[in-house]
Amino acid sequence: MTTTYDLIVLGGGPGGYDAATEAAASGLKVALVEAAELGGACMNRGCIPTKIWLGATSAIEELAAQSKARVATGEIHVDFAALQTRKDRYIAATRKAMAQRLASLGVDLLAGRGRISGPHEVSVATAEGEKELGFRKLIVATGSRPASFPGVAADGDRVLDSTGFLALERMPASVLVVGGGFIGLEMAQAAHRMGASITVVDALPRIAGPEDPEVSKLLETAFKRMGWTFRLGVKVARVATRGDNAVLTLEGGEELTAECALVAVGRRPNSADLGLEAIGVEFVGPGYIKTDENLLAAPDVYAVGDVNGRTLLAHAASHQAHHVVQRLLDKARGPYAPGPVPSILYGAPEVLRVGLMADEAKARGEAVLVSRSALVANPIAQAHAATQGFVKCVWREGRVVGVTAVGADVSRMAVSAALIISAGWTRDDAAGFMFPHPTLDESLKAALLADKEAA
Amino acid sequence: MTTTYDLIVLGGGPGGYDAATEAAASGLKVALVEAAELGGACMNRGCIPTKIWLGATSAIEELAAQSKARVATGEIHVDFAALQTRKDRYIAATRKAMAQRLASLGVDLLAGRGRISGPHEVSVATAEGEKELGFRKLIVATGSRPASFPGVAADGDRVLDSTGFLALERMPASVLVVGGGFIGLEMAQAAHRMGASITVVDALPRIAGPEDPEVSKLLETAFKRMGWTFRLGVKVARVATRGDNAVLTLEGGEELTAECALVAVGRRPNSADLGLEAIGVEFVGPGYIKTDENLLAAPDVYAVGDVNGRTLLAHAASHQAHHVVQRLLDKARGPYAPGPVPSILYGAPEVLRVGLMADEAKARGEAVLVSRSALVANPIAQAHAATQGFVKCVWREGRVVGVTAVGADVSRMAVSAALIISAGWTRDDAAGFMFPHPTLDESLKAALLADKEAA
Repeated sequence: MTTTYDLIVLGGGPGGYDAATEAAASGLKVALVEAAELGGACMNRGCIPTKIWLGATSAIEELAAQSKARVATGEIHVDFAALQTRKDRYIAATRKAMAQRLASLGVDLLAGRGRISGPHEVSVATAEGEKELGFRKLIVATGSRPASFPGVAADGDRVLDSTGFLALERMPASVLVVGGGFIGLEMAQAAHRMGASITVVDALPRIAGPEDPEVSKLLETAFKRMGWTFRLGVKVARVATRGDNAVLTLEGGEELTAECALVAVGRRPNSADLGLEAIGVEFVGPGYIKTDENLLAAPDVYAVGDVNGRTLLAHAASHQAHHVVQRLLDKARGPYAPGPVPSILYGAPEVLRVGLMADEAKARGEAVLVSRSALVANPIAQAHAATQGFVKCVWREGRVVGVTAVGADVSRMAVSAALIISAGWTRDDAAGFMFPHPTLDESLKAALLADKEAA
Repeated sequence: MTTTYDLIVLGGGPGGYDAATEAAASGLKVALVEAAELGGACMNRGCIPTKIWLGATSAIEELAAQSKARVATGEIHVDFAALQTRKDRYIAATRKAMAQRLASLGVDLLAGRGRISGPHEVSVATAEGEKELGFRKLIVATGSRPASFPGVAADGDRVLDSTGFLALERMPASVLVVGGGFIGLEMAQAAHRMGASITVVDALPRIAGPEDPEVSKLLETAFKRMGWTFRLGVKVARVATRGDNAVLTLEGGEELTAECALVAVGRRPNSADLGLEAIGVEFVGPGYIKTDENLLAAPDVYAVGDVNGRTLLAHAASHQAHHVVQRLLDKARGPYAPGPVPSILYGAPEVLRVGLMADEAKARGEAVLVSRSALVANPIAQAHAATQGFVKCVWREGRVVGVTAVGADVSRMAVSAALIISAGWTRDDAAGFMFPHPTLDESLKAALLADKEAA
């Protein structure tokens, strides 16, 4: 006999796991279907392992800054094998804790690939054979995987995607980073700190393409000062292992060689072979599931997280999951509204973006003003000898609608910037609110209080 | 002929400087009277130099954490003379920039001690002799200085107050810290990182007395792990230089010896000899100026910052200054309301406190609930191998009214905690707001979502 669940969730990443636990904690009967590991790409092959690398090596950047200021000298050596062990153990322990929490909430966890096999039915290919489950509601949260292009794909040898790079047993002496987006730049920073020389190659004329152009420029300057090489606005014909090296061939024939290449050219949704077509789901772009204002992809079928292509960020997935569960419980107040979405590039410098950017507004023909502060005027930036950077606010009709920042530790302003944008602060609101002194956060207040100019 | 100003400000610390610049920028004719240096104790002898020390040495703590996790090894040496030069240059440059800004706004800066000499009159003892100024409104922002007690006072030799300690030419090998409050603990952490052995002596049974008792306990454990010695709940009979050492004698006769003693036993208001008595100003405690709900101390005379004893924090002074200037401009919306005041102890661990604490509420007989999260569950705390600590929320009638936290980098939650308390969030508000992942800030969200229990 087929068990019928109030909710079946396909995918145990941030969106799927949060949906399953919240729904179960609220009394629903829930099954979670995961083909690989609990935690998804974020926990196992993405944000978390990258942050473990960056956290373990942050003292190296701190020391470099103080050395440049001639205040400190020293040497730091990272035991890469020990770091990888620590990372893998942490991830394994977290997965175990997640499984225990699911069990304690009564969620049935099915290891296998799930697909919609009929009206309100899911079939799961488990190690013990096919299992059929019934659902009243379904959430598709199957996430995404690294993208590749013909000629530009991981080969399991010297050409790696982010998954392969994070699994390295030895940090190579040189890395060719194909793609100057967040994933490539974060991993490259960790590699640089551990001694690798870095070359970044991108078809776009600037790195961190979705960011404010001033942010991209400052990042490029900062990384060049660290000794990185950039080849921007160039097209990659192919990248392949040749002997003990990765060799990248540019269109035109020029070759770049390093011990390893990291292909980080974006991500693709995991939306194929889920039986979605049969129930009328539509797709956009490279296979993102089309969702309506309530995140519905088809009657009784929701899609959250990377797979719907709205925002490829773990916290967006979790936030969407919360909305869907609230809907299932009849508690949602209106359609899905993400609010100002914070986005962070980790490292040193860091990048923060929340809400509307000036160039987005201009592209839409909206008149916005900007105001800014420079980190060099902040005593905490001075204390860390990390004074390159700025905070920039975007204003519409007297209210702040966007904040971007670049510089050491600017991510600490992410939540407050999101709260301030949500609250629709005016300049007077900023002037009247007590920010602690001395903090880097005062750079945000300074930017909010600064004179506004046309964007 | 006497010049009459719209506003005279006595004292160029954070409160006085901010009042003068905001008033002048708004069109008022302003004079600022400062007997010592622009920037006050905070900039010259307090928060800023301490943060320069802590910032310059933070890589040492980061490395220590990763070493303990067996991921990194290394050595960091701080050139103390270079650090002191850097600190002094930064402070001098900032003072110069402050003076330039005052000049550019048309503020008359008078170097000398000011006192009220008659109705709406101030007399300033400058190097060129006594000057008489008239005012329509006066702000007293004369701040505070280190406290001392009979037998427990800086002697300019081996017994130093915070001012003398920050001016050291060589970091001593051992420091006796008299007073386990914020100032002593921050300076002791910097000294520890630069090689000093630390002994903390306090009459109270716990360090960081104004904090949640759980915070004090965690701090003591953390510092003990670093090798510090604590002598708590003991009374100091005297501390004095003996030869090349500072010798502290406890009541009972036991002696403690170190290369240097730092006396950090609180602060005292600079309220004497200002001519305040003659205009009817009243005082509370050890000389704090009594102010009404609008920060008025007498007709047309306001007091802001440490000298009024409300909150001995630089940002409270600035916030009060803003209120007074708004009042002078007829823009204030009602009486002075500080909102939730954030307080931070820097170092590693850090301490954050915003709004109401559980034991304060209990002492007032108020029923509150608390909820909490542990940093060990946070991936960024794991990445920095700094997992000791927690976030604790205090709830009244279903709304969060206080947040305290202890652990590495918890100060990054200060502004968001203050915003959340100001907004009076419920648990549902927290559940529906997108926090970026992965961030330490998610520990605040986790605490807000955790089950509540009686305080």
